[in-house]
Amino acid sequence: MTTQVIVLNGGSSSGKSGIVRCLQSELPDPWLAAAIDAFVDSLPASLRASDAGIEFAEDGGVAVGPEFRKLEAAWREGVAAMVRAGARVIVDDVFLGGPASQEPWRKALAGLDVLWVGVRCGSTVAEAREVARGDRPKGMAAAQAEMVHRGVAYDLEVDTTNAESLDCARTIAARLT
Amino acid sequence: MTTQVIVLNGGSSSGKSGIVRCLQSELPDPWLAAAIDAFVDSLPASLRASDAGIEFAEDGGVAVGPEFRKLEAAWREGVAAMVRAGARVIVDDVFLGGPASQEPWRKALAGLDVLWVGVRCGSTVAEAREVARGDRPKGMAAAQAEMVHRGVAYDLEVDTTNAESLDCARTIAARLT
Amino acid sequence: MTTQVIVLNGGSSSGKSGIVRCLQSELPDPWLAAAIDAFVDSLPASLRASDAGIEFAEDGGVAVGPEFRKLEAAWREGVAAMVRAGARVIVDDVFLGGPASQEPWRKALAGLDVLWVGVRCGSTVAEAREVARGDRPKGMAAAQAEMVHRGVAYDLEVDTTNAESLDCARTIAARLT
Amino acid sequence: MTTQVIVLNGGSSSGKSGIVRCLQSELPDPWLAAAIDAFVDSLPASLRASDAGIEFAEDGGVAVGPEFRKLEAAWREGVAAMVRAGARVIVDDVFLGGPASQEPWRKALAGLDVLWVGVRCGSTVAEAREVARGDRPKGMAAAQAEMVHRGVAYDLEVDTTNAESLDCARTIAARLT
Repeated sequence: MTTQVIVLNGGSSSGKSGIVRCLQSELPDPWLAAAIDAFVDSLPASLRASDAGIEFAEDGGVAVGPEFRKLEAAWREGVAAMVRAGARVIVDDVFLGGPASQEPWRKALAGLDVLWVGVRCGSTVAEAREVARGDRPKGMAAAQAEMVHRGVAYDLEVDTTNAESLDCARTIAARLT
Repeated sequence: MTTQVIVLNGGSSSGKSGIVRCLQSELPDPWLAAAIDAFVDSLPASLRASDAGIEFAEDGGVAVGPEFRKLEAAWREGVAAMVRAGARVIVDDVFLGGPASQEPWRKALAGLDVLWVGVRCGSTVAEAREVARGDRPKGMAAAQAEMVHRGVAYDLEVDTTNAESLDCARTIAARLT
Repeated sequence: MTTQVIVLNGGSSSGKSGIVRCLQSELPDPWLAAAIDAFVDSLPASLRASDAGIEFAEDGGVAVGPEFRKLEAAWREGVAAMVRAGARVIVDDVFLGGPASQEPWRKALAGLDVLWVGVRCGSTVAEAREVARGDRPKGMAAAQAEMVHRGVAYDLEVDTTNAESLDCARTIAARLT
Repeated sequence: MTTQVIVLNGGSSSGKSGIVRCLQSELPDPWLAAAIDAFVDSLPASLRASDAGIEFAEDGGVAVGPEFRKLEAAWREGVAAMVRAGARVIVDDVFLGGPASQEPWRKALAGLDVLWVGVRCGSTVAEAREVARGDRPKGMAAAQAEMVHRGVAYDLEVDTTNAESLDCARTIAARLT
């Protein structure tokens, strides 16, 4: 049996999307990307800034409501179904609830061969990259840097603080079975 | 039973994405968008310009290969699973194969309450909008305007040639059960 | 002497950018685009949401402050200098102050051969297109539809309410000398 | 007299845009960004892929033609005029011709207080970042990494190979007079 799903968890500006693109480029088989950002983009505009949906505060805080959670649960089922239908998928998520965010993924992906990867980035460096990107509310990177990893179990952790995305991707690729 | 999936089929620059955003804005319940363009964006860059994946020729032609078809089939299963898990979804696709493209959607969505919608746009107007967008290969709109509808069965057809996306969205919304 | 600058003035979602791309595509000589949106993108992020810079209210209102005005004046001089250096330029602006916004352009472009074009769009249609785009604060289109034209003098007016951008572009192109 | 223009020169994927955003964020006064990428975006689509304009080859090579050069010269005059009109400007360019690219900037900015900055990035790292971005032709970063700096004179050089954009921006900011 070979790895069917790679789940990347890391804070905002930790470098997840870059690692996804490098994995897609490095791995010999085609892997689909399933990013929480793309899921958020598929929501109605009204849910992208409301109590029922998701709100990005000016201080970098993120709050999600009941409608968001319901659709997010359906999205996880959709990702799992893609894998069961034969697609290899790289999930790129932010576990705002730590283990409480990992648990529903565990259930949705039950029976599949999953590689759980923590993507760490030192808070100061993540914050600096947030300024350099210029498209994220200031403070989100620092707020999430540690929080999203607390209590989460991984098969592998990579750290982008002093490593390029491509090197992290190669470390992950070497662990696929 | 109420409508669970809306499938929009139409050629490039026929106005599908605008209708999706208007539907998301007009409908009281939250609907997720599942666009073929977002699926293509989730592919590895290498598949986005290769014989095995999808190729956009300079004359507006589009060719898809075996790897693309395999992942596309998994994507359809993923969309169906999201609906079965409780999400309302608006699919936005281009049936390059006409009925041969509709059939796999029929199978994937079997048992669900689907509204099939044809989005038409006169070839000359679609071509003019393609120039105004400036981000699509010239010729794609004209090449697909008629082709994608041949032999496809709809519950409803809208025409954006002389109507705004919002009006078309309201026509569709009025047909939901 | 031939036309050296085309200045398009119109409200948000009136279709200016589409007309610019169509003009660039239709006109035999290369014309540069100089859009107020691109100018705003070139500002520091802090000025894009502050009293000193520009603020987009949730109701579609737009307020500009002293720092914004100072840099905007420099931008106009930059555009004029490009024209004097031999480039043909299409300006795409929103005269929030009506004649008070046209006047500084008149001064900056003094001595150059300018075609002043009003881009109108009925308020209801502009509002519908704003929903279909989904990337502008709701209300901006309606708020600006009439306001930006009051007291402004044009060589030519086009109306996108019932016409494609490409047709409007051709009408403009026919007036170039 | 204080610094009026900062000119950053560096190869593709060397990190120039990130440094620009960090400078805009760190510097107390508002600075406008004038990027060669934004200039290219303001060209007609036809010039963005033609012998007369600019061509990006699949191997990462870039060729510019006579129409491109003519408009680029006008753009430089426009940037200089913005500075003379009182705006502080950060130019972000790629000196494909080395000293032959610096010379016309020297002439355009004559009499202004300019800080010339070289932005270096080791070829291997720039290439890795190119893969992680995923929106540039592969090979461009490596092709330009050394070439654009040969024979160019700087007031200051920064190296993003092992430093964050924000740190490089602070080094530059410390040199402003």
